[in-house]
Amino acid sequence: MKESKVLLLISDGVADRADRSRRFQTPLSVAKKPHIDKLASMSSVGLMYLVEPGVTPGSDVAHLALLGYDPYKYYTGRGALEAIGAGFKMGPSDVAFRSNFSTVDSSKIVQDRRAGRSEMGLDELAEALNEVKLTSVEGIESEFHRTLGHRGVLILKGENLSRMVTDTDPHFEKTRVGVAKSEDDQKSSKKTAAAVNEFTDKSYEALKSHPINLERVKHGFPPANIVLSRGAGTPPPIERLDKKYSLRTTCIAAAPIVRGICDLAGMKIVDVPGATGRPDTNYLAKADATIDAMKASDFVLLHIKAADVAGHDGDFKGKVKVVENLDRVVGRLLKSIDVKRDYFVFTADHATPVAVREHASDPVPLLCAGPDFDRSMITKFSERSASHGNLGTIHGRNLFPILMDRLWRLPKFGF
Amino acid sequence: MKESKVLLLISDGVADRADRSRRFQTPLSVAKKPHIDKLASMSSVGLMYLVEPGVTPGSDVAHLALLGYDPYKYYTGRGALEAIGAGFKMGPSDVAFRSNFSTVDSSKIVQDRRAGRSEMGLDELAEALNEVKLTSVEGIESEFHRTLGHRGVLILKGENLSRMVTDTDPHFEKTRVGVAKSEDDQKSSKKTAAAVNEFTDKSYEALKSHPINLERVKHGFPPANIVLSRGAGTPPPIERLDKKYSLRTTCIAAAPIVRGICDLAGMKIVDVPGATGRPDTNYLAKADATIDAMKASDFVLLHIKAADVAGHDGDFKGKVKVVENLDRVVGRLLKSIDVKRDYFVFTADHATPVAVREHASDPVPLLCAGPDFDRSMITKFSERSASHGNLGTIHGRNLFPILMDRLWRLPKFGF
Repeated sequence: MKESKVLLLISDGVADRADRSRRFQTPLSVAKKPHIDKLASMSSVGLMYLVEPGVTPGSDVAHLALLGYDPYKYYTGRGALEAIGAGFKMGPSDVAFRSNFSTVDSSKIVQDRRAGRSEMGLDELAEALNEVKLTSVEGIESEFHRTLGHRGVLILKGENLSRMVTDTDPHFEKTRVGVAKSEDDQKSSKKTAAAVNEFTDKSYEALKSHPINLERVKHGFPPANIVLSRGAGTPPPIERLDKKYSLRTTCIAAAPIVRGICDLAGMKIVDVPGATGRPDTNYLAKADATIDAMKASDFVLLHIKAADVAGHDGDFKGKVKVVENLDRVVGRLLKSIDVKRDYFVFTADHATPVAVREHASDPVPLLCAGPDFDRSMITKFSERSASHGNLGTIHGRNLFPILMDRLWRLPKFGF
Repeated sequence: MKESKVLLLISDGVADRADRSRRFQTPLSVAKKPHIDKLASMSSVGLMYLVEPGVTPGSDVAHLALLGYDPYKYYTGRGALEAIGAGFKMGPSDVAFRSNFSTVDSSKIVQDRRAGRSEMGLDELAEALNEVKLTSVEGIESEFHRTLGHRGVLILKGENLSRMVTDTDPHFEKTRVGVAKSEDDQKSSKKTAAAVNEFTDKSYEALKSHPINLERVKHGFPPANIVLSRGAGTPPPIERLDKKYSLRTTCIAAAPIVRGICDLAGMKIVDVPGATGRPDTNYLAKADATIDAMKASDFVLLHIKAADVAGHDGDFKGKVKVVENLDRVVGRLLKSIDVKRDYFVFTADHATPVAVREHASDPVPLLCAGPDFDRSMITKFSERSASHGNLGTIHGRNLFPILMDRLWRLPKFGF
């Protein structure tokens, strides 16, 4: 049996929504993309709802689904995916929170949830937070990491922790700091709630008189004198792809959340010089890294963020240009990837319509080229033409089994 | 209210995959099939994934789904469906195994898992196996039946048995006969494992010096001196269609597994002279039997195996010819079945692409004609045209509820 390989190219947010003001055109339908259209003409084409109709997926949920993990089963809270996406390691029972440096008064009434969005001295304050020792519950340690701006992640490390706890971030200003509570009757949740409450109190004790905060006030910035936390999460308990399918896999992505999920799935993460996760990314460097990765992998996920950025910016022309850059990537890849032998799949993780400037629940177009895929005879790849394809309408979690079936990794069900 | 009836015509494996070497044509797209195409033009058309995308169904799993039973819930092991398919009755807690006559040496190392594939004297050896009495566990009896070639089924009969036991067939030669173990901690599983182990030991005692085996060795065949078992299964705990929908149902099929499942579902099984389960079957006799069965049934399942056989043989022209024969069946049926009054549904239980020579996970085309179905305006019925139909993309387990809904057998969900 010949050893076929799979390339899954995910253009983040490239799917769009036809709009009357633009004569029902989308970036995919108007961009000049001869290579993508040629690939489509050799492909089985379909529509894909990443989660299900009407559900707008985040990139985290979408990528879980694209790797075959049902997000309803495996999405275990945003905090953990935020931490993993930022590159921090978590044990299976650790709990992570999305946290903010915030400003409270001496009665612990929140004055500014984002501490004036000033980053001044926050690295030093984060260091101070890592001196905090939790004592109210035995065997739990805290770790605090800054991420971007006023944001960070709090990781509680220990055995038998739980994500079923409420936030200490009250989500509104002029209200008192929240007290985390367990959302069920489990001992693990009560223990976790006690720990995050203790950390919140001790963050105030550690920060309120910190020299950095005196300095911030002197410069006219609100003191970053507490850490407020929300979105408790544990790492998704997913089975690694190498164990599940005996598959060698590689991820080429700049976006932290995609790298984090692929890392959890046991994929090798490749760094590409010049890959930025923005529209100015080095497209062809990513294509070349992909061709290289295909040599020693059975499955390569190539993620390109740029279209999503243009969608969030509401920049139609910019998104068209991203598609044309993607087309060059596809052209370069098709010089090395022979779809008579290997599989080439192109899709999006969600729509980010320029008219919406946010993720949307619309289905995304999908093409699957390769030796064992039927042809849909669709010569222009777009949101609308994809609805005529012979893959019909599938869900995000179906795609990976379809591909694993083509690699003979799945047994027949029944006889 | 007029009493409509439903005919479900299942052409086993008729769906195929367009292939570049044949200019993306399939047997359904090239065969001359004026009656099927005429029926399609009056039908709601769609694509159907029997289980879900990426999952390749066996005919057993597919037929469970087609009768509305979710295979993830009701597929309870291959052994039982093999036994039921071969026409043997099972009680609800009986456990059946797929078994082989095999050859072991005196240390119980497997020398030939198929006893040289020689059938010499196996009927007599099967009789000897039915003298075996199990004594290690109270209340369990064994039954052994030959099926085809060196194969058979072992049925353990008794109360509180379980299919959660491993195989005694080690699946490889030059290894020792396996010892069945319980796969959970239930008493029922431990009891069943003990019984199948005892049967395996006693099969060796009963066969090793049997005169037939001395004769086999004299003729140069390996002795069939043990029975190895695998794939423990209990009958799917499905509710009969007559109870579930107060429906009079008939099955016209030659294939044992289809007959077995329909029998479990409480359907009347009709024998048709000349129906062989092969491409040389008497197509028109089956059509006539169907017309006759429609008189006293609300639902008739007509299963024709031939296309699957051509698919497994990789015989494109043969499969085209089968479609043309099916077209004659449809023509004959349409003389009696008025789709202004009754429902006529035509589909496949899975694809068996000639290029694959095996079942495949591709969706199958589906047409539903009848008084309450919209028309998709599709005039040539094929895998590709079906993707444009107004039924969209459904799952196998959805079809039966669609039909029962048309027969007013399903309540509204909600009010």
